[in-house]
Amino acid sequence: MPTADRTDLDHTHDPGVRCGVPGADGHPDFPIQNLPLGVFSPPGGARRAGVAIGDHVLDLAAAHAAGLLTDEAARAVAAAESGDLAGMLALGAGPRRALRHRLFALLRAESPDRDRVPALLHEAGACTLHLPARIGDYTDFFVGIHHAMNTGRQFRPDQPLLPNYKHLPVGYHGRASSIRPSGTPVRRPSGQAKPPHLDAPVFGPSRRLDYELELGVWIGPGNELGNPVPVAEAADRIAGFCLLNDWSARDIQGWEYQPLGPFLAKSFATTISPWIVTPEALAPFRIPQAPRPDGDPTPLPHLLDPADQAGGALDLDLEILLSTASSREAGLPPHRVARSNARHMYWTVAQMVAHHTSGGCNLRPGDLLGTGTLSGPEPEACGSLLETTEGGKVPLRLAHGEERRFLEDGDEVILTAHGRREGFAPIGFGPCRAVVLPAP
Amino acid sequence: MPTADRTDLDHTHDPGVRCGVPGADGHPDFPIQNLPLGVFSPPGGARRAGVAIGDHVLDLAAAHAAGLLTDEAARAVAAAESGDLAGMLALGAGPRRALRHRLFALLRAESPDRDRVPALLHEAGACTLHLPARIGDYTDFFVGIHHAMNTGRQFRPDQPLLPNYKHLPVGYHGRASSIRPSGTPVRRPSGQAKPPHLDAPVFGPSRRLDYELELGVWIGPGNELGNPVPVAEAADRIAGFCLLNDWSARDIQGWEYQPLGPFLAKSFATTISPWIVTPEALAPFRIPQAPRPDGDPTPLPHLLDPADQAGGALDLDLEILLSTASSREAGLPPHRVARSNARHMYWTVAQMVAHHTSGGCNLRPGDLLGTGTLSGPEPEACGSLLETTEGGKVPLRLAHGEERRFLEDGDEVILTAHGRREGFAPIGFGPCRAVVLPAP
Repeated sequence: MPTADRTDLDHTHDPGVRCGVPGADGHPDFPIQNLPLGVFSPPGGARRAGVAIGDHVLDLAAAHAAGLLTDEAARAVAAAESGDLAGMLALGAGPRRALRHRLFALLRAESPDRDRVPALLHEAGACTLHLPARIGDYTDFFVGIHHAMNTGRQFRPDQPLLPNYKHLPVGYHGRASSIRPSGTPVRRPSGQAKPPHLDAPVFGPSRRLDYELELGVWIGPGNELGNPVPVAEAADRIAGFCLLNDWSARDIQGWEYQPLGPFLAKSFATTISPWIVTPEALAPFRIPQAPRPDGDPTPLPHLLDPADQAGGALDLDLEILLSTASSREAGLPPHRVARSNARHMYWTVAQMVAHHTSGGCNLRPGDLLGTGTLSGPEPEACGSLLETTEGGKVPLRLAHGEERRFLEDGDEVILTAHGRREGFAPIGFGPCRAVVLPAP
Repeated sequence: MPTADRTDLDHTHDPGVRCGVPGADGHPDFPIQNLPLGVFSPPGGARRAGVAIGDHVLDLAAAHAAGLLTDEAARAVAAAESGDLAGMLALGAGPRRALRHRLFALLRAESPDRDRVPALLHEAGACTLHLPARIGDYTDFFVGIHHAMNTGRQFRPDQPLLPNYKHLPVGYHGRASSIRPSGTPVRRPSGQAKPPHLDAPVFGPSRRLDYELELGVWIGPGNELGNPVPVAEAADRIAGFCLLNDWSARDIQGWEYQPLGPFLAKSFATTISPWIVTPEALAPFRIPQAPRPDGDPTPLPHLLDPADQAGGALDLDLEILLSTASSREAGLPPHRVARSNARHMYWTVAQMVAHHTSGGCNLRPGDLLGTGTLSGPEPEACGSLLETTEGGKVPLRLAHGEERRFLEDGDEVILTAHGRREGFAPIGFGPCRAVVLPAP
C-alpha cells in the first residue's frame, strides 16, 4: 500500500483487511474500506443514521446504544440522533474520522466485538434510504469543461465557452425542495416551450427530457455570512460526495433560461445516491488537478492553493446505464450509454467552495453542491443525451435495437461511480437511479 | 366601508374600530386592522411568535398560555410554538383568519379581556425581530416590467425584453442562507469583475453595489412534488407579504451571469422586513390586474384565472429612502430616492405560484418568493440605482448635497410599503432597512 508520502492514507485503506460481515469483502461498492454515511429506516422503524457495509446497513444509533462507540465517534453519532446527518457533518473531519476508525475496528473479521455486530445490521434491500440531511441550499456548478464545450458549441459554434469560464467556476442556485434519493421515480414535467416552427410557445409535457451525470458534494462545517472560506481551507468544509442526476427538460430550458438561467427545466427533480462517501474513503483516489492547457489563464490568487492543485482532483470511473420498459420486459440488462471520469473538472471542489463563499455567502452543514455534468473528451463519454445525440439529431442506438434521442416514459437512468487504483480496494457510491413516469 | 361586493372584507377592516393598545390607532404601519405575524425575542427571552400592534409586539404564546385563544386560533399558535411560523403558515387561510378575528376582538378598546392584554405586550423597540421561518427555498422573479425594460435597454437597446418575458413570469432560484431580517448590516461583497478597460478580471470589493425594491411572498400550504397548483388555487397558497431588498453587486453580476444567471452578485445578502402582512390585512388594497397593452399575448390557459385578473394585483405605495453616514451625522432625515407602487407587476403573485409549480416543482411552507424589482414608469419610480443613475452614468443628487452612482459604505437603505385607500385604515409593512459595511 503506497502510503509513505500520503498522510491522508492509513490502515483503513489497507486492501488486505477482511470484514466480518458476510459479503462485504469484494463488494463492488461497500467493502470495509468505504463505510459511507446515510440515513435509513429498517422495515417499520424510524429513520436513523447508518453506514453501508456490503449488502447491509449498520445501525449507528444501535451501535451507540450498545456502548460500542466512545469519545469522538460517539459524539459524531449523537449529533445525528434526529435522523438527519447535518449535525454530524457540521463536526468536521475529526469526529468523522474517529467514527470511521472505530467502525473499521468493529467490523473487521478479528474484531473482539464481532459477535455483537450482527444485531446491528439490517439487510440493505429491506431498508428505505432517505436523503441524508435536510438540504438547506443546493448550488449547481458547471465545471465539466467537455460538457460546457459540447453544449456551448450547439448554441455558439464560434465561442463555445463564454469569457468567464476559465476565470471562475460558473454556478447557479438550484432547487433544494425537489431533490430525492435514488429510487424515487421522476415524473416528466410539463412546461412552456417554443419549438422553432411555431411563433408562440405551447404548454405540455416535455419532449426533450434528459439526464446529467454529476457528482454531488456535501458541505460539512459551514461559514458565517460575510466570512469567506480561503481556498486552502476549503477542503475541510467538504463532508463527502454522492452521485447526482440533474434531470433537465431541454425544450423548457431553451425557452425559459434567458436572462436569469435555468429554472423549471431543472427544478422538477434532482436524484442523488443516498450514501455520503467520505473524503477519507476517497483518499486513495485523489489525484493532481490536470495542468491547464497552454494559454489558459492562471486562476486568481483567492482560487489557487498548491496543495489543492497537487491532490484536489478525483479519479473516479463514472457510468451511465439506461434500461427501457421493453428491455426490462425482455429481461435484458441495462445498456451502458456512457463512461466518463470525475477527473474532467476544470475547477476543483475546493475552488468551488472558495468561489462560492468569496463574496461572503454562507454555506451551512447539509448544503449540497453539484459539479455540473462530467463529460469526458470522447463521444462515448458524454454525460447527457443532449451531447450524445447532438441535440436530438443523431439517435443513440441501444443494444437491444431501440433508439433514443431523449428519454421516454418508463426509461430508467442509472449512474454509478467507482474508485479503482492498484494497491487499494475498489469502492463505489452505490447506484443513483430513477425511472421516468409519464406527465400527469 | 365599501364591503357590499367583496366577500374578503369584514368587520376587521372597519376603520372606525378603536384599539385598546395605546398608540395603535393611527399608527402608520400597525393599527388593529393589520395584525402582521412574526417571530421575536423579548429582552433576554427565547424566540416566539408575535403580532405587531402599534409600537408593541403581542406575545402569541403567552396569549395562548393565558387561555385567550381557542379552537382554530389556538391551533394556529400551537403550530408555531417552536419559534418558527412555518407550521402556522402551512395551515392556510382558515386558522390564520380565525387568529386574526380573535386578536381583533381581544385588542379592541371595548374587549372584555382588555385588562389582560398589557401583560402580553412587549415594547417593539426593545425586542429582537427574527426571520419568521426557516426559509426552505427562495425564488426571485422578474415581474416588474418597467425594471425589466429599464435594465434590458441598457444591454439591448433594440430588444429590452426577451421573447419569453410576456409569456411566462421569468424567475430563478436565489440563495436562502443569506436572507436576513431588517436591521442586520450588509457587508459589501468582494468578487470577480472585469471592468471594460481591462483584459482580465480582477478580484476586490464591489464598486457597483446596488439595492432592489421588491415584495417578498411567503408560501403557506405547499404542494407535493409532481402536483402543480392550478392558477385558480394559487392565491390560497400565499400566507403573506413582506418587503425585500435584493442587494446586487452590478460589477460582479455583469461578469458572472452568463450563461446560468445571477449567483454571487446576489447571494451575499438579501434583507426582508420581518412582519408577514397577511392576505386578510391586504384585502382592501387588492385591485384588478392592469389590462395588457394591445398586441401583448394572452397568457396561456394554465396561467389565466378570471378571479385572479379581477383582484390579484396589489395597490401598495412603495418608497426607497437613503441615509448616508454624513447625513446621519448632520442629523438630517433620510433622502427619498424613489416612489413606486406594487401594481407595476406584469404577472400576479398567483401566476408566479402557478408557473413555479407547473412542471411539478414543490413549494413548502416557509418558502419565499421575490417579485423582482418594482419600478414604476417614471424616472422617480426606479427601484434600483442601476436604473436611477442609468448604469452609474447620471449621479443621483441627495437633498443635502451628496451624490451617489452606487452605494457607499455607511449608506443605509430603507424600503417602505403602505396600503392607503379611501374608507379604510392605512396599514404598512414596517421598514426593511440595512446599512452597508465596508468589505472585510
